Amino acid sequence: MSERPRTPRPRIGITVGDPAGIGPEVVAAALRAFAAEPLELRVYGDLDAVTRAGGALPEGTHRRFASAAVEPGHPRPEAAAGIVGAVQAAARDCLARELDAVVTAPLSKEVIGAGGFAYPGHTELFEEIAGGRAVMLLVGRGLRVALATIHCALREVPGRLTRPGLVSVLEIMHADLERRFRVRAPRIAVCGLNPHAGEGGRFGDEEERIIAPALADARGRGLDARGPFSGDSLFHRAVAGEFDAVLAMYHDQGLAPLKTHAFGQAVNVTLGLPLVRTSVDHGTAFDIAGKGKADPSSLLEAVRLAVELARNERGEAR
Amino acid sequence: MSERPRTPRPRIGITVGDPAGIGPEVVAAALRAFAAEPLELRVYGDLDAVTRAGGALPEGTHRRFASAAVEPGHPRPEAAAGIVGAVQAAARDCLARELDAVVTAPLSKEVIGAGGFAYPGHTELFEEIAGGRAVMLLVGRGLRVALATIHCALREVPGRLTRPGLVSVLEIMHADLERRFRVRAPRIAVCGLNPHAGEGGRFGDEEERIIAPALADARGRGLDARGPFSGDSLFHRAVAGEFDAVLAMYHDQGLAPLKTHAFGQAVNVTLGLPLVRTSVDHGTAFDIAGKGKADPSSLLEAVRLAVELARNERGEAR
Repeated sequence: MSERPRTPRPRIGITVGDPAGIGPEVVAAALRAFAAEPLELRVYGDLDAVTRAGGALPEGTHRRFASAAVEPGHPRPEAAAGIVGAVQAAARDCLARELDAVVTAPLSKEVIGAGGFAYPGHTELFEEIAGGRAVMLLVGRGLRVALATIHCALREVPGRLTRPGLVSVLEIMHADLERRFRVRAPRIAVCGLNPHAGEGGRFGDEEERIIAPALADARGRGLDARGPFSGDSLFHRAVAGEFDAVLAMYHDQGLAPLKTHAFGQAVNVTLGLPLVRTSVDHGTAFDIAGKGKADPSSLLEAVRLAVELARNERGEAR
Repeated sequence: MSERPRTPRPRIGITVGDPAGIGPEVVAAALRAFAAEPLELRVYGDLDAVTRAGGALPEGTHRRFASAAVEPGHPRPEAAAGIVGAVQAAARDCLARELDAVVTAPLSKEVIGAGGFAYPGHTELFEEIAGGRAVMLLVGRGLRVALATIHCALREVPGRLTRPGLVSVLEIMHADLERRFRVRAPRIAVCGLNPHAGEGGRFGDEEERIIAPALADARGRGLDARGPFSGDSLFHRAVAGEFDAVLAMYHDQGLAPLKTHAFGQAVNVTLGLPLVRTSVDHGTAFDIAGKGKADPSSLLEAVRLAVELARNERGEAR
């Protein structure tokens, strides 16, 4: 471990996301909510939009990215470079240990795509900057759900599951649950791909060909990986405390139960990267931007969790 | 409408399911729970197993099906004919108006398969007997979720979705929500197949090719069918009362959120058939059968809902 100074106040970088969405107003709400807390919030992005949304920027290091005078509810592709640049700068500052964690407000893939940046999501953007394999984990009301595949068509999911790939995801989950979440010997429940986890090969064979062998490999490496279980009746067992996290095979299998259980309170955490990053669980919501209707709960939860994860990680390095 | 006598006490047929599972004990619990209620429970299946599980069969019409002296926790394929025969008899008695509804306790597809009966599930068995296209609807804690595909491998799901097929499912949902659930002008929310409902074609094109055109057709026929929506953030809106029912494209997309929201209290309802049928949301649970651990809540809910649906349907026929 490299030597580094103790930082009593965690330095959290918050990216504003798309300035035409609800990002500026939820960031403004976070600045108010944490004004008296022992943490340093540094804002990355369209600082004027945050000010217009009622945010009082505390003294400190913020980084301004131009956004072509975008108005709430009216996204423009010209803003894409500033939106992406802010995320990249925050990620780099975190890698350079100028920040202890990064928290991201939402951007629109359509907007950054129209502006010439081809990222399927924030997570992949971080993966590119920070290196390593990112695993998306959603946390909400006691439930933690990671995804084996994320942003791809459902018909591509079966072909993307591989035995070594699943082992790698399980190792990342295990390591980050121990190191950043302070869970000892984490119990990870794994969903099958097919209904009833294939029901003994009746509905698909990926459980027998890929998932069960991957779990055997993972257990051989000392991980407490259980399953594959039927994806429909597994999550309530995790809610009840039987597992520390669930690995779902694809987006809706994991996020539909998580968001039904904890909508508005869920936080997205990127595992597997050499930096702590959390995010809101909602989109830009252009339709309500600037109208005072946006609920900042998810961003507040994301900041709180980022502080906790950064502290846990720093604690271990001491 | 055919003339038929008013029946003050609804006649509910309950099938015992696999006598080696928890069926006998949850049926016994239902007999106790409803003993003083104004309804007539008629049991179909292994009556001795129900008696051994502590069930006092009320006087009345029950139908015995042999089950080859199966013991709790030890299923035998020799019992398959009796298990299937009981379900078929209850369905036929309901079609013949000897029953007002059928409620089914769980059977095992493996056991009936080993016994020579190739049904992927109860629902398909009813479809064959009663004719018509069955649609599976799960109901729990205010959430109603129907499935466009049920028991098939995930990789087969995209190929099974068709524009006329989805329109037909939506028509069945609309008709049964009005007639049996007494919902006026039911608002049906429809999930996309892909993450974020394809996000404008980025992750799959089934929304644009199949689902959106099917919704347009359905709306052209006067149905209030909305979507396609992102499958992960839709169900909490239904829980909040924005929709009367959700149509999911496949098993885990619909049942993972439903069972996370309402596990143990969910009831399975078969729509689209000329009879009322409800069922438990759990399996045979051979591992705990006969040990006094089974929770009868789902069966009690299934009986209550069957009574309500039968009354609603009868009310309309008066």
